[in-house]
Amino acid sequence: MGNRLQDIVLVNVEETNSWRTYPVDLSKVAQPMDGDFTGKNFLCMEQLTSADINVYLTEADAAYQVYMDPSQRGINLLPFVVLTSVMRQESTRTGGSMTTAIEKLGGVGHLISGMKSSSEAKGESIPDSWVAFATQSDLIGTRTPEEWGPALAASAIHEAIDNQTLARHVPVINLGDGENQHPTQTIGDLLTIKKHYSGLDGLTIAIVGDHERYRAHHSLALGAAAMGMKIIAVESAVARMPQSLVDEVSASLVVRTEDLDSAMADADVLYMGRKPDEYKRKGKEEEERNRKLEKAYAGWTVDRARLQKMRPGTIVMHPRPRRNELHPDVDSDPRMRDVQQMELMIPARMAIIALHSGKSIIEAVQRS
Amino acid sequence: MGNRLQDIVLVNVEETNSWRTYPVDLSKVAQPMDGDFTGKNFLCMEQLTSADINVYLTEADAAYQVYMDPSQRGINLLPFVVLTSVMRQESTRTGGSMTTAIEKLGGVGHLISGMKSSSEAKGESIPDSWVAFATQSDLIGTRTPEEWGPALAASAIHEAIDNQTLARHVPVINLGDGENQHPTQTIGDLLTIKKHYSGLDGLTIAIVGDHERYRAHHSLALGAAAMGMKIIAVESAVARMPQSLVDEVSASLVVRTEDLDSAMADADVLYMGRKPDEYKRKGKEEEERNRKLEKAYAGWTVDRARLQKMRPGTIVMHPRPRRNELHPDVDSDPRMRDVQQMELMIPARMAIIALHSGKSIIEAVQRS
Amino acid sequence: MGNRLQDIVLVNVEETNSWRTYPVDLSKVAQPMDGDFTGKNFLCMEQLTSADINVYLTEADAAYQVYMDPSQRGINLLPFVVLTSVMRQESTRTGGSMTTAIEKLGGVGHLISGMKSSSEAKGESIPDSWVAFATQSDLIGTRTPEEWGPALAASAIHEAIDNQTLARHVPVINLGDGENQHPTQTIGDLLTIKKHYSGLDGLTIAIVGDHERYRAHHSLALGAAAMGMKIIAVESAVARMPQSLVDEVSASLVVRTEDLDSAMADADVLYMGRKPDEYKRKGKEEEERNRKLEKAYAGWTVDRARLQKMRPGTIVMHPRPRRNELHPDVDSDPRMRDVQQMELMIPARMAIIALHSGKSIIEAVQRS
Repeated sequence: MGNRLQDIVLVNVEETNSWRTYPVDLSKVAQPMDGDFTGKNFLCMEQLTSADINVYLTEADAAYQVYMDPSQRGINLLPFVVLTSVMRQESTRTGGSMTTAIEKLGGVGHLISGMKSSSEAKGESIPDSWVAFATQSDLIGTRTPEEWGPALAASAIHEAIDNQTLARHVPVINLGDGENQHPTQTIGDLLTIKKHYSGLDGLTIAIVGDHERYRAHHSLALGAAAMGMKIIAVESAVARMPQSLVDEVSASLVVRTEDLDSAMADADVLYMGRKPDEYKRKGKEEEERNRKLEKAYAGWTVDRARLQKMRPGTIVMHPRPRRNELHPDVDSDPRMRDVQQMELMIPARMAIIALHSGKSIIEAVQRS
Repeated sequence: MGNRLQDIVLVNVEETNSWRTYPVDLSKVAQPMDGDFTGKNFLCMEQLTSADINVYLTEADAAYQVYMDPSQRGINLLPFVVLTSVMRQESTRTGGSMTTAIEKLGGVGHLISGMKSSSEAKGESIPDSWVAFATQSDLIGTRTPEEWGPALAASAIHEAIDNQTLARHVPVINLGDGENQHPTQTIGDLLTIKKHYSGLDGLTIAIVGDHERYRAHHSLALGAAAMGMKIIAVESAVARMPQSLVDEVSASLVVRTEDLDSAMADADVLYMGRKPDEYKRKGKEEEERNRKLEKAYAGWTVDRARLQKMRPGTIVMHPRPRRNELHPDVDSDPRMRDVQQMELMIPARMAIIALHSGKSIIEAVQRS
Repeated sequence: MGNRLQDIVLVNVEETNSWRTYPVDLSKVAQPMDGDFTGKNFLCMEQLTSADINVYLTEADAAYQVYMDPSQRGINLLPFVVLTSVMRQESTRTGGSMTTAIEKLGGVGHLISGMKSSSEAKGESIPDSWVAFATQSDLIGTRTPEEWGPALAASAIHEAIDNQTLARHVPVINLGDGENQHPTQTIGDLLTIKKHYSGLDGLTIAIVGDHERYRAHHSLALGAAAMGMKIIAVESAVARMPQSLVDEVSASLVVRTEDLDSAMADADVLYMGRKPDEYKRKGKEEEERNRKLEKAYAGWTVDRARLQKMRPGTIVMHPRPRRNELHPDVDSDPRMRDVQQMELMIPARMAIIALHSGKSIIEAVQRS
């Protein structure tokens, strides 16, 4: 957190049972969008202005119309475009959503799920592996256990382009990098809020959970703040929103609390998240952290009774999968948006894929 | 067996190492087709009249023409339609066949094979998982280790529709549910018989194997009886056709025997099946059952000598994979239909996919 | 090595924990192409004349134009054609490349990776499994741990055709069979050389590595020799190019050496390859072999200093993944072609897929 686009970040990856550190120059791979997405990587929220986010959201609106219309169900915008989603942390959800998104645009999705690809098993380095994927893809999406793992992928590809060994540039989209960010999720999240409230500016969102390690919360805080939203971080003392992130978001937009009920009373949007157990580490301190966090999560369960704290007309979100954060007895409450949120990931990702491939769904719809 | 469409069935599923029971109201999810397949789930043979089965078969005939014509190989009927086949019991065969079927109709197939999806690994409930798949699919096929597992999928989706949280209805197709049924296999089986005999009414089919637990036999008995066929159940005392199934089929249509040779002499169709070892349970009684059943299967091997018992012009089927039930020396006998039967699964499933998506292959062919 | 197209080869495969040997008649499945590829299997380099190789290469040139043109990215030549790539040795690279190749031609790719398919787990024989795949595919590619495993697949399919049980013939493409050959890699390799030198006749290629067991080296030696190239086999005493292969290639075209530096000075093309550890066997002799081979590979590392031995204007290749054979500090050298070589696998495989499906990319481009 608190990285800036001019930073050099160090990416630690495991290669054939030994660890290696690669420096990645963000100024090369994480360029500001500034309204032009064509061919650029999408690695972190810091690349986006509110205008950029609005472009994603209006394209996603057009994608939504096409996607939901049973007489269309898709649009033939990206024929022969191959998107490879390399989920180095296993995923059927996000990977499947990317695959559906490219296919709804007339392209092709490849989904590779699991930590070890067979080439890594043959002793290949991670950068070599990314260049190899680039030779058989038009677009790469990836989820990695490492922070800035997708940036490392982009860096390897840029280097091969610089070396004039790789002929075609292949943009990389971050589908979740360790404890860092999950920016495509955030675009879908903001789309869900916009579907209900039309505008985002001035809304208050209460974000509940492990603010230290849950990546969807990190990119959401950045995205919400960029759109002028106020953030109530409902947190535990052992898993607070990093101060560097608060500073980046702007301290004036963030309120910290441990009191979920008062946050719900004030919020236009309640955003829950699961406890990210995949980042549990070893040692006594961690066990203590985990114990306390578990207790905090137990106290945050939203059921029908507690949901009465929220004003009518507000909405409740969760990026799923959920465990006990949302009791199933709230599923029929008209404020629930967690299922719609999953649905909207498709048009959100259609918009991202199209824009980074140099295409506009809005224009395509107008032409047709 | 012996379920009726108005029953509430209890579905037991394993979730993150604990078992849970969900009640599923069949009257909501397993509606009678009555000639209109659009948007309906296909969960069990009880949903079909003989007229419904005939619709599948005539659509499948049209699909077969398209599929086999090397200048066509497919038809662009369902562009942008995403079928996700979630094989919670591992399968390359049936899953691949569904995927080929949707792609031969111009749509897209996703195949997820293996018991644990990554979201289940993250602690998600089974109904939540089904709703998630629905948000990124137009059609779901599934094989489950549990009886009525696909009905549970349909139930979760219907509930999300009722809650107005899921915007698009997604039909569910049963690709085999535990020891219960395998209805798409049955449609392909009946198509294979019809290819040879033109009509099905009045034919005699000898079905050989574990009638207690082999799901393909269960749905075949129901489908064959619905089409007016007589059934010889060649069975072992330890694995008899359930009386409830006999009653449902109509006792007057079923003859039980342990004598394969006499059954072959009387049959127009011989239908073998493998021993379903995946349903072996623990305990002494089960070991005894297994021992006796193994002996029965050993006595049922059909080789070239035994095949002389069948009249010329009859046919021999097996839903594959086979073990010792059919000796390879019969492979060149002109009565063998086991390979064609696999081939016909594609047009049979093309027909099912098209009809449940509200499309007719016959009409599409006439228009083109 | 040294097989002839009239041989009967014995294929040993593991089935449900027991080994079985199948005889395969190459005269039936590995026919000479003689300019007509339609419907034929592509199993080994011996099927090709230099004229046949030139057809692949000129088709691949046309495929390359289409593939690299950002306004096209593909061509709709094989709609509804399903290519199933069954990688019985795990592979994301070659499997993904085949899948991209068919999709760039408007068809559909299925990728099955891993030794055990679920049907094999149900006790099915390997030939039965191949026939099953044929019933749901238009084209099969496969990588097998066994030599001539793809020929066994072809043989099973031919037998089912002969038995009149399988209605449609499905060609088989060898994507690497044990220690034998890797012919589609070789076509891509030759395409890479031709991109640089225009003609192949008279060029000298130095091939470095385990000449005994590395299949890409075997088919490359055959293909290079067929095109009139001279071969310097840079080898270790424990892993020499088999004499049968030298004889087949023609002894007059092959020079053996252990001295990489002198080979580099003489070569127009340097072709490195990784140590194929998947073929390590047990026993003392093997350990000794492995130790010596490891030492030889350590002495063959090509870094920036050593690369000065190569003349300017020459090229360096490696079929990737690499380990220490090519030091990353050579990646920016203008002679490196290892990345381009991966890129060119797509058009090479597009050409192969199109031709064996009875289509010409060149003609399609001219028509459009």
